[in-house]
Amino acid sequence: MPSTWPQPMDGMTTPRFAGPVTFMRLPQVEDASTLDIALLGVPFDLGTTNRAGPRHGPREIRNMSSIIRRVHPVTRVEPCRLCRVADVGDTPTNPADLMISLAMIEERVAEIRAAGAWTLCLGGDHLISLPILRGIHRAQPGLGPLGMVHFDAHSDTNDSYFGGMRFTHGTPFRRAIEEGLLDPARIVQIGIRGSLFDPEDMDWAREQGVRIITIEEFEALGVDATMAEARRVVGEKPAYLTFDVDSLDPAFAPGTGTPEIGGLTPREAQRMLRALRGLNIVGADVVEVAPPFDHGGCTALIGANMMFEILCLMAEARVGG
Amino acid sequence: MPSTWPQPMDGMTTPRFAGPVTFMRLPQVEDASTLDIALLGVPFDLGTTNRAGPRHGPREIRNMSSIIRRVHPVTRVEPCRLCRVADVGDTPTNPADLMISLAMIEERVAEIRAAGAWTLCLGGDHLISLPILRGIHRAQPGLGPLGMVHFDAHSDTNDSYFGGMRFTHGTPFRRAIEEGLLDPARIVQIGIRGSLFDPEDMDWAREQGVRIITIEEFEALGVDATMAEARRVVGEKPAYLTFDVDSLDPAFAPGTGTPEIGGLTPREAQRMLRALRGLNIVGADVVEVAPPFDHGGCTALIGANMMFEILCLMAEARVGG
Amino acid sequence: MPSTWPQPMDGMTTPRFAGPVTFMRLPQVEDASTLDIALLGVPFDLGTTNRAGPRHGPREIRNMSSIIRRVHPVTRVEPCRLCRVADVGDTPTNPADLMISLAMIEERVAEIRAAGAWTLCLGGDHLISLPILRGIHRAQPGLGPLGMVHFDAHSDTNDSYFGGMRFTHGTPFRRAIEEGLLDPARIVQIGIRGSLFDPEDMDWAREQGVRIITIEEFEALGVDATMAEARRVVGEKPAYLTFDVDSLDPAFAPGTGTPEIGGLTPREAQRMLRALRGLNIVGADVVEVAPPFDHGGCTALIGANMMFEILCLMAEARVGG
Amino acid sequence: MPSTWPQPMDGMTTPRFAGPVTFMRLPQVEDASTLDIALLGVPFDLGTTNRAGPRHGPREIRNMSSIIRRVHPVTRVEPCRLCRVADVGDTPTNPADLMISLAMIEERVAEIRAAGAWTLCLGGDHLISLPILRGIHRAQPGLGPLGMVHFDAHSDTNDSYFGGMRFTHGTPFRRAIEEGLLDPARIVQIGIRGSLFDPEDMDWAREQGVRIITIEEFEALGVDATMAEARRVVGEKPAYLTFDVDSLDPAFAPGTGTPEIGGLTPREAQRMLRALRGLNIVGADVVEVAPPFDHGGCTALIGANMMFEILCLMAEARVGG
Amino acid sequence: MPSTWPQPMDGMTTPRFAGPVTFMRLPQVEDASTLDIALLGVPFDLGTTNRAGPRHGPREIRNMSSIIRRVHPVTRVEPCRLCRVADVGDTPTNPADLMISLAMIEERVAEIRAAGAWTLCLGGDHLISLPILRGIHRAQPGLGPLGMVHFDAHSDTNDSYFGGMRFTHGTPFRRAIEEGLLDPARIVQIGIRGSLFDPEDMDWAREQGVRIITIEEFEALGVDATMAEARRVVGEKPAYLTFDVDSLDPAFAPGTGTPEIGGLTPREAQRMLRALRGLNIVGADVVEVAPPFDHGGCTALIGANMMFEILCLMAEARVGG
Amino acid sequence: MPSTWPQPMDGMTTPRFAGPVTFMRLPQVEDASTLDIALLGVPFDLGTTNRAGPRHGPREIRNMSSIIRRVHPVTRVEPCRLCRVADVGDTPTNPADLMISLAMIEERVAEIRAAGAWTLCLGGDHLISLPILRGIHRAQPGLGPLGMVHFDAHSDTNDSYFGGMRFTHGTPFRRAIEEGLLDPARIVQIGIRGSLFDPEDMDWAREQGVRIITIEEFEALGVDATMAEARRVVGEKPAYLTFDVDSLDPAFAPGTGTPEIGGLTPREAQRMLRALRGLNIVGADVVEVAPPFDHGGCTALIGANMMFEILCLMAEARVGG
Repeated sequence: MPSTWPQPMDGMTTPRFAGPVTFMRLPQVEDASTLDIALLGVPFDLGTTNRAGPRHGPREIRNMSSIIRRVHPVTRVEPCRLCRVADVGDTPTNPADLMISLAMIEERVAEIRAAGAWTLCLGGDHLISLPILRGIHRAQPGLGPLGMVHFDAHSDTNDSYFGGMRFTHGTPFRRAIEEGLLDPARIVQIGIRGSLFDPEDMDWAREQGVRIITIEEFEALGVDATMAEARRVVGEKPAYLTFDVDSLDPAFAPGTGTPEIGGLTPREAQRMLRALRGLNIVGADVVEVAPPFDHGGCTALIGANMMFEILCLMAEARVGG
Repeated sequence: MPSTWPQPMDGMTTPRFAGPVTFMRLPQVEDASTLDIALLGVPFDLGTTNRAGPRHGPREIRNMSSIIRRVHPVTRVEPCRLCRVADVGDTPTNPADLMISLAMIEERVAEIRAAGAWTLCLGGDHLISLPILRGIHRAQPGLGPLGMVHFDAHSDTNDSYFGGMRFTHGTPFRRAIEEGLLDPARIVQIGIRGSLFDPEDMDWAREQGVRIITIEEFEALGVDATMAEARRVVGEKPAYLTFDVDSLDPAFAPGTGTPEIGGLTPREAQRMLRALRGLNIVGADVVEVAPPFDHGGCTALIGANMMFEILCLMAEARVGG
Repeated sequence: MPSTWPQPMDGMTTPRFAGPVTFMRLPQVEDASTLDIALLGVPFDLGTTNRAGPRHGPREIRNMSSIIRRVHPVTRVEPCRLCRVADVGDTPTNPADLMISLAMIEERVAEIRAAGAWTLCLGGDHLISLPILRGIHRAQPGLGPLGMVHFDAHSDTNDSYFGGMRFTHGTPFRRAIEEGLLDPARIVQIGIRGSLFDPEDMDWAREQGVRIITIEEFEALGVDATMAEARRVVGEKPAYLTFDVDSLDPAFAPGTGTPEIGGLTPREAQRMLRALRGLNIVGADVVEVAPPFDHGGCTALIGANMMFEILCLMAEARVGG
Repeated sequence: MPSTWPQPMDGMTTPRFAGPVTFMRLPQVEDASTLDIALLGVPFDLGTTNRAGPRHGPREIRNMSSIIRRVHPVTRVEPCRLCRVADVGDTPTNPADLMISLAMIEERVAEIRAAGAWTLCLGGDHLISLPILRGIHRAQPGLGPLGMVHFDAHSDTNDSYFGGMRFTHGTPFRRAIEEGLLDPARIVQIGIRGSLFDPEDMDWAREQGVRIITIEEFEALGVDATMAEARRVVGEKPAYLTFDVDSLDPAFAPGTGTPEIGGLTPREAQRMLRALRGLNIVGADVVEVAPPFDHGGCTALIGANMMFEILCLMAEARVGG
Repeated sequence: MPSTWPQPMDGMTTPRFAGPVTFMRLPQVEDASTLDIALLGVPFDLGTTNRAGPRHGPREIRNMSSIIRRVHPVTRVEPCRLCRVADVGDTPTNPADLMISLAMIEERVAEIRAAGAWTLCLGGDHLISLPILRGIHRAQPGLGPLGMVHFDAHSDTNDSYFGGMRFTHGTPFRRAIEEGLLDPARIVQIGIRGSLFDPEDMDWAREQGVRIITIEEFEALGVDATMAEARRVVGEKPAYLTFDVDSLDPAFAPGTGTPEIGGLTPREAQRMLRALRGLNIVGADVVEVAPPFDHGGCTALIGANMMFEILCLMAEARVGG
Repeated sequence: MPSTWPQPMDGMTTPRFAGPVTFMRLPQVEDASTLDIALLGVPFDLGTTNRAGPRHGPREIRNMSSIIRRVHPVTRVEPCRLCRVADVGDTPTNPADLMISLAMIEERVAEIRAAGAWTLCLGGDHLISLPILRGIHRAQPGLGPLGMVHFDAHSDTNDSYFGGMRFTHGTPFRRAIEEGLLDPARIVQIGIRGSLFDPEDMDWAREQGVRIITIEEFEALGVDATMAEARRVVGEKPAYLTFDVDSLDPAFAPGTGTPEIGGLTPREAQRMLRALRGLNIVGADVVEVAPPFDHGGCTALIGANMMFEILCLMAEARVGG
């Protein structure tokens, strides 16, 4: 590892309550061309249909991330030694205009990707996945529709809300499939649950070929079989990974806008993410951390840990690619 | 479904933070004779021996219930299309007099039942089950002693507290058995745990024939065997269902007055309630949600979800009967 | 008072934790033509530039309002005996589209006013004052520009934010003056304070003739002289009253999105509102209660009390007009 | 001071987070005959008509009281050097029976007083003042009706609630006057405010001769004139002092069941209590601290400080008598 | 059981919100020679490297412990009938000096042990285990190095922090092994997880022979096999038991300074502790309850329950020895 | 103003919830030689005798500071246009060693001052003032003993705690006077209050000539006379300004370790700080913000505002000097 590579601040030297509020207290850099993986905040929540607050997510995830140490406990991966990783701050957003914000997010992601870095984003509500995917494809037009591993309580493939609104945190993946950003046959959704607006809620997604593993199916399959299925669906081609913290039970992740009881435990989530090792994860996000509804940073802490799990996956994918 | 049947407000049309604070934003109606199932608040907590607060339960459960959509995710039951369901508001209570309150609750339940509607109640502390059962029997004298499925950390079959007090939230089912409201041989209690006042604490209940499945036995049996046993005990005759949120672990349901660590998870509880499909549940309650000790509405959210699970069971029982 | 007039539920008969979650537990009515004053929720916060959350304001203000009794302690006014007052529920809003929401709010206010009732609104962020004023004028085209008493930490007369956004909670009164809804020479703003974006921040407002009484001037003048000045500015013609809870110090009203330390105390605010007796207040709102940042309902309780103070003023104005 | 007198633990020797949870970390003693002033907890809240919780008040007031040091900052009084002062623990109560609890409280107070110690009680809701006064008179039958200084938002002289309930936290002083325990002509109530059930709410009290100083009159008079009036009313004969924390504004004392905005500040309350020096305060209580609604112990901290102010007054009265 | 043995206050007689704040409301005694097991608070957190607060742990654990009843629900053990058990209050500590505090803790533990009582300590941060072990060995020089069952997210066998600091809550067991207080070959650590400072973090411990069961190994083994292994490692000779609440997932135990997601559940922890029955546990502690980060006493409640589980183990060991 | 001067991020362009967590979102710079005023975090709380937590103060004050705009509302001072101001991050500290931490803080302050920048520090507990003063004098040996304006509930001039501990947050100014860092005759302490350990608590300070204005004297004098006296005491020579947030009432600043009721209001504090304009303030700090005990960032928000008030004073002093 060249000595110039950015490194997280060490909690054995500088106590965790000190130092900068960047992810893992990595340096903040502006120029993504010096990086392999860019950690990018997306403070946006205009897609939220119930309780707002994910606009504050990036800052609080970074705040809690100072507790994370540099080595993965199971895989022993050290992402910042495999790759050049840094925090590139937040995308611009416009809290008074949803559509302009989407354009701003897309623009910043495309710029970073064009400079050569992959993005791992801190949301923000789940609608951000759409402009992120747009930005990736704009910068890499030949990439082809991506597969996707999607942890969530909700499929987020509704068509519209509130009389025709096509852009909310309940619709991003319908749009992304329609726009050819994602290959529905290579999408797996895990943890889906909760009462339905309509018995046909997820029919469209299933018709496109999306593989939906409800929490009930997950319980029947167990972690290992679920993830084998996920790997089978996504395959070896490039894929996106999106982690909505409401995939977890609200006891673990209370700070979120559309909580559904009966969700995953962090132990299950960690095991599932680790089972994705070797997939070609070329971009990712962690979304729906809503600090105003959090208690003592618990949800932001989970967000930070999920970011680290995914960073390890992406670092291996990046150097393996 | 006749177009005049009451329907919940749709979260895809009216955002969940708007609209009336009734259960699932159903209409509030006064005349129970137009209903099959009446959702009834019982804001009472004079039976509480430790931390008070369930008096605020009905309002907060209703508040959080706006997040629930009309279709059950697993059974696809749509209770408000099977039956006429509405919120009938709160029973009168008297916060300065326990015995008068019990009479008021009984009176209102009897009145609703006599009008032809079954009640699903939002508590309130667990003592409310007693006047509810009395009211049911008063309105339907020929019903015969009911079976009961009882989720709880505590058996609530103590004889008395504090030098002879026979009416507290620790005694309702002893009274109900003594009064012939329940058939002890058809009662199953699930999730019982926590340190004991005395080694003989539950001997009386067991001697009456109550089947007590402690949390330890539940862990050994698993969900499926536990529920097979529950169904066997209760049988096909009419039964009551009572769900105390302290059956859940305090991490999931912190807002309660007598928390016992080591409880059920919501996933387990949901699976167990769903396994009761087909039982003849003719009345039910969800109790011991104590908002002053809750965090961000987590416990009230669980209360609302358990209400919905039970509503689906009762709707099927009602139309099946 | 005719016996058919709506009356709040009495806390000496029905305990405050029971009963419907309407303002003061008044009946909820749909048909505003039966009313003199309509209490209208406006669950909207897309105009928020910092911390979101006022979308949840109407529900929590109603929740805390059950503590209010029917008689004003100082003036002995009983608004619901002077007038026909009821809660008319919430306006429709669209949490995914700011401009559509403004139109929906305007429409509902106009409809109520055209039916003959004046509106006292529960916000929502401060941008709601704009569509409310538009609705009033649409229904009563001959009303003429209104005077306004405006309690706030901020003048809310900025031109635009975020590169040209003209509709945020920092701009409503600039728009309202531009559109001729308000007469700037009859506007008084009280409690203005906090650091400035620019030394010229409030020059435009002052140039229009708006009378700005900063917190510093208020402290120098005292309550009585301040309100004498406010009455002088507003005069006897019809006026609007808008109360932003961030006019209060954050210790009293922590649940708000743009808190500024050094604000009014509730005692000062109550005295100031009472000093407006006799003004011709023909419409009003209480805004910026953001429950996600509140503690134990303190801010919602203040919102409810401010609503009651204003209701008493409006009731007298209504019968006096 | 004899070396055997009980002394508070010193925060310069034993840190405030250590040591016993008694008031000021004084010794707990059972035998009141060794004391001049007994600090007595009364964990009772069955008189509460709105939000419950004062049952937890004594424990939390004691918890926060470890921050108090032994010398009064203004008067330099050292109560534990003037008198023998200790914590005598809690009265028995029965959370399932209001009337029995009143008898238990009266009994314990009478027992302590008969042993020669005056009581300063930690509530508990305001109804406890009634059995305390009964207990005092039972033990000292010749004492004669007491005067009273009463800090509160509410007069607590209602006749009954909920259809004839004569014992709630809104009625204790009506009962006490009726029973001859208090001399209404020597009662002063300070800080009264909040909306009224009825315009005649306080007529009965005024007719008995009670001097009610509303918050508005207090503001007009100022602290000094208010307290001169209070001293004039109460006179030199034995008097009781009762401090309801809802006399304070909810920003300072959020942890209470019936909060009324626009209350006293702690600075005002401290100045007012200090102005009572020299009165013959022969018993006292601090009530309505409801920890479930408190934030970070703020209200309990105020309760502890008010206890200390009153303890200094009583210690001087005791040795001066 | 002799009638003079200290007994916990009974929640069926005295409500749980009343009475002294000692563990299980047992009597507080000074003279340990009258006891078999002494419950000892250690309010110390100078070893904390991240979020402080365990100094408040003993008081809050005691506060929540009033909910515990005298009989173990599974084993039916009644520890206070097997042994003489009481609360002996807190050790002296010095919040301005780490090394002096360690000496004070050691001194008090040695004194109690020399008087014949075994200690079960309420922490405090995890560094307290070191002076406790020193105190035990000082009082019983012939005891020989102890085995240890250690529940934790962290191994706490680091060498030093912050440039050579050898005494923090991350180092106690390295020191204890170096000093011969513990026999590393008889130590088992359960629940270890979380990102690592360095891939070699736990090599030293493993080289000494410590048996580390990570959370991943635990999940693979299950409760029964894990505990069989634990019993094998520790053997029949005297052993210490230390329970760090961060072994639990932060959803269950949020009030702690170094939370690691993906931890044990209380049900697992209870089963594991119960599986230690028969081991020769001669001393124990429960540590890292940090009330400032807790919600509604959840973590303190778990601390109290873990104390009770361990008390039952120690009581059996004491009488069996 | 040269275009290269660091400027705060503008809330009208970048929303306040986005961007870096530095003070006012100013750039973070390492090289203090490019600055006139350096904003320096001091995350240290080993001097705390009661509730810990100020170690988290710098981060949370910076977090809340994004709400502050660039222009002072009364004086119209724009500090970042008068001077080169930036955030220089945190001093090193060692959470396991008080004395080493003091040396580290002193070293960093001296280094910055030697480079030509004045420091305005974000604490941290009050003991940090001592090493800051040492660092200033070490870098500027000819400066001479400084005057000081000291806002606090406590005099912090005790000699020692806990059996001889001379360095706690209760002793810094005794040490600073003894070491000749401060001129006691030019020190004024404002807001002092709260019960006393001993009647002689502040005698030493008064004997040195320190002018102590208790809260009672402040109330009698009013803001203007108090500040006239403060200016008289401090005079025109260089002075330090230290602002302990516990000078404010706990309702406004609950997040602090040693709260004393009856404190200043923010309005009073702001007026007092503004009255210091023209004094030669050459260094300053804001201390004792303890986020674990804060609610919704209220105390950190006050800390940020007090920082801004002082920054304006220092900027004028710097350019005026």
